[in-house]
Amino acid sequence: MYPGTLVQLIENFRKLPGVGEKTAERYALSVCDMNETDVLEFAEALKNVKEKLKYCPVCGNLTDTEICTICSDPDRNKKEIFVVQSAKDVLAIERTAQFRGVYHVLNGLISAAKGIMPENLNIDTLIERAKDADEIILATNTTMDGETTAMYLDKLLQEQYPDLLITRIARGMPSGGLLDYADEMTLAHALSDRRRLK
Amino acid sequence: MYPGTLVQLIENFRKLPGVGEKTAERYALSVCDMNETDVLEFAEALKNVKEKLKYCPVCGNLTDTEICTICSDPDRNKKEIFVVQSAKDVLAIERTAQFRGVYHVLNGLISAAKGIMPENLNIDTLIERAKDADEIILATNTTMDGETTAMYLDKLLQEQYPDLLITRIARGMPSGGLLDYADEMTLAHALSDRRRLK
Repeated sequence: MYPGTLVQLIENFRKLPGVGEKTAERYALSVCDMNETDVLEFAEALKNVKEKLKYCPVCGNLTDTEICTICSDPDRNKKEIFVVQSAKDVLAIERTAQFRGVYHVLNGLISAAKGIMPENLNIDTLIERAKDADEIILATNTTMDGETTAMYLDKLLQEQYPDLLITRIARGMPSGGLLDYADEMTLAHALSDRRRLK
Repeated sequence: MYPGTLVQLIENFRKLPGVGEKTAERYALSVCDMNETDVLEFAEALKNVKEKLKYCPVCGNLTDTEICTICSDPDRNKKEIFVVQSAKDVLAIERTAQFRGVYHVLNGLISAAKGIMPENLNIDTLIERAKDADEIILATNTTMDGETTAMYLDKLLQEQYPDLLITRIARGMPSGGLLDYADEMTLAHALSDRRRLK
C-alpha cells in the first residue's frame, strides 16, 4: 500500500533488533520528514561502519584505527586482561573508570542453544596474549552462557599456564538491591563470598 | 569511547523518534554484525526515500510515482474525499477495505502549541478539489488538534461551498471497549450519537 521505496526502507529498519512493523513504519516516515543532508549523512554513516570499522587484531574490540585506542594506549597495563562478551561491555567498564588494564572481546558466548562453539569465538588470540599476562579477569555475563564460557576459559587457561592468576568478577547483591527480591543464586553468592568489614 | 565511525552512526539513529542512547547503541552495534550487502542496501534505501519519494500533487500522500497509486486508480470514486492527517492514516483506512473514494493528506494538524498554522498544511488543494466533490469526510484524529483542524476545515468548506456534504467520522465506544474504563467524552458521544437497532 505504501510506495515501493518506503516499503524497502521499512523492511530495512525491521532488521534492527526489537523493531517490529509499526516501529519500522514510524522510523521510515520520520526519515521522510528529515532534511536531505541529514538523510545522506545517515546513509553515509551506515556505509562507513561497514567499510571502516574492524575488529582490533589484538583484543577483538571494534575500532576504526589499525589497533584500537585502548590497546595502543601506552598508559594501560597490558598484563591485566579483562575478558568480556562484546564491545558494549568494554564501554560499560570504561564508564566506571576503575580499570587501567586492557580488554579482550570474545564477540559472543559459548551457547549450545544457539550453536555457538568455542571455535566461533575470539579465543585463540586470548590464549596467545595470556602468555605474558599477570592476571586474566573473566567478566562474561553471569548468565548460563556466560558462566559456561568463563568455566571453559578457566580450564583452558589453567591447563596452558598453571601459574597464571585467573579471576572471575564478584557475584553478590547489586547496589540498591533488596534482599527479599533477590534470587537464590544471588543470595547464595552474597553469603558465600562475604567480606570482613575493616 | 567508541570509535568515531560508530559514534556517528549512533548519533544518526538517535534522530529517529523515540530512540535514546541505549537503543541507538544497540542498533548501531547490530549493524556491525550485518553482512555488507544488507548494510549497503539499507544505506541505499535511505537515500532513495529522500530522492524518489514525493508528496502526490493531488492528495498529498507519499508517492514514488508522478501521481499516487490511489489518485491514479480509475476505480476509485474521486467525488468522495477522506481527509486525514498523515500517510500512516491512509494505510490504516486502506487496511479496512471499506472505503473506495480518494484521500487528502494534510501532513499535519493545526496546533497552537507546536506553532502549526493552517497555511503550513496541505489545505489549499483540498479547497480546490472540494469543488467537484460530493462528500468530504473529515477524519483527523479525535484529539484536541484533530478536532480543531476538523472544525476549521468544516467552516472553511461551508463558506466556500454551502451545499457540499461535509461529514465527521463517528465517535463512540471502540470495539471491545469497557464502559467503566471509557472517558466522559467518549461516553457522551456514545450516548448522543446512539443509533436505532434494526
